[in-house]
Amino acid sequence: MEMPQIMAEAVESLARLPGVGPKTALRYVLALLRQGDNAIDLLAARLHQLKNLQRCTKCQMMADRDICAVCADPVRVASRLICVVEDVTDYLALERSGKYQGLYYVLGGVINPLLGIGPEQLHLDLLTQRIKEAQISDVILAINPSVEGDATCAYLRQILPSTVNVDRIGFGMPMGGHLEHLDALTIWQALENRKRLTQGRRYE
Amino acid sequence: MEMPQIMAEAVESLARLPGVGPKTALRYVLALLRQGDNAIDLLAARLHQLKNLQRCTKCQMMADRDICAVCADPVRVASRLICVVEDVTDYLALERSGKYQGLYYVLGGVINPLLGIGPEQLHLDLLTQRIKEAQISDVILAINPSVEGDATCAYLRQILPSTVNVDRIGFGMPMGGHLEHLDALTIWQALENRKRLTQGRRYE
Repeated sequence: MEMPQIMAEAVESLARLPGVGPKTALRYVLALLRQGDNAIDLLAARLHQLKNLQRCTKCQMMADRDICAVCADPVRVASRLICVVEDVTDYLALERSGKYQGLYYVLGGVINPLLGIGPEQLHLDLLTQRIKEAQISDVILAINPSVEGDATCAYLRQILPSTVNVDRIGFGMPMGGHLEHLDALTIWQALENRKRLTQGRRYE
Repeated sequence: MEMPQIMAEAVESLARLPGVGPKTALRYVLALLRQGDNAIDLLAARLHQLKNLQRCTKCQMMADRDICAVCADPVRVASRLICVVEDVTDYLALERSGKYQGLYYVLGGVINPLLGIGPEQLHLDLLTQRIKEAQISDVILAINPSVEGDATCAYLRQILPSTVNVDRIGFGMPMGGHLEHLDALTIWQALENRKRLTQGRRYE
C-alpha cells in the first residue's frame, strides 16, 4: 500500500516547491498534521490570499494594490532617486539594510539570450516612463555582478535618458570578510575601488 | 517598507514548517507566485484536504477512513504477522522495500521519560487488542536503535502476550556500506549477527 491518496496529493503539490523533494514534502505534511486543523486552515487561507498580489504598476514590485506603498510615498518620490534591482529578493535585501530611501524598479531578471530574456522582457519602457514622471536625477543600478548583469548595466546605460546620473553599486570586500577567503575578482575590485584616507604632501 | 502584508503572512505560515526559515519561506512564496493561480489553488485545496486524514483505528497509521487499506486487506490479516514501527515515515520506508506483507502497528513514538512519553502514550492496549483479534503469531519490532528504542523493545517484550513470537529487526552492515565508514557499534553488531556460509568439518 501507498500512503493515503489525500496525503500523497499534498506531498506531490508541496514537492513542486523549489528544493523540496518527496521526503521533505512528507516531512512538511506530517508536521502540518501534528500542528492540527487550525494551522492547516491558516496556511491554506494565506496561500489562497497570494492570488490577490499583483505587480505595482510603477515599480513592478509585488503589491496588494495598484501602486505599492513605496511608490505612493511622497518622501520617497521627492528623493528623485531610483534603484534598479533584478528581483523581489534583491529589493527586500536593500530595504532590510535600511540605508536606502528612494524609489525602486524591479526588472524581473537580467538580459540573458540563453534564457530568451531580451530587453523587451524587462519592461524598460515603464522604467524610463517612471524616470520622467518622478523627475529622477539619479539611477542606481543595484544589479548583481555576473556576465548577464554586467551586460544589462551596459544596455541600461545606453538607453536611459541623458538627464540622469547612472551609478552602479560599489564592489569590494564585504564587511566581516577576510582577504584570505575572497576570490581574486573581488580582491581586484576592492583594490580598484580603494578609498583614500589621507592625502600625502608631495615631496618638494 | 516591508513586503506586502499578504506576502508576509504567507511567509510567516510557511516558516512554521520544519527546517524552513523566513528566507526559504519567501523563496516558496515567490515560486508559487511564478507558478500561478492554479498551482496556488491546488496546493491550498490539497492542504485543506489533509484535515480529512485520521488515524486508522486498528494500526494508528494515517488513513482516509476508519480502517486503512492494509488493515482491511484479508491477505495481510491472514499473514498473522504484525510489524511495530515508531512512526509513519518508518511505516512508509518498510512499505517501499516491498518485502513485508503483514500488518503494522504505529506506536507514534518511543518511551522517552525526558519528553514525558510513557507506555500509556503509545496506546499499547490497541496493539495487544489487535494481536488477539487477528490471531497474530509473530510480532516484528522494527524500532530504530537508540537508548529509548531499546527500552521500548524491552518493555514490549514484557507486556506482549506469551502466545506470540517477538523478533527485533536485524542489525548489521547496510547494503552498499563500507566497513571503513561504519561506526564501532554497527561493526560490533555485524560481527555478532554474522551468518555461517560453510560448516567446517572438525579436525579429527
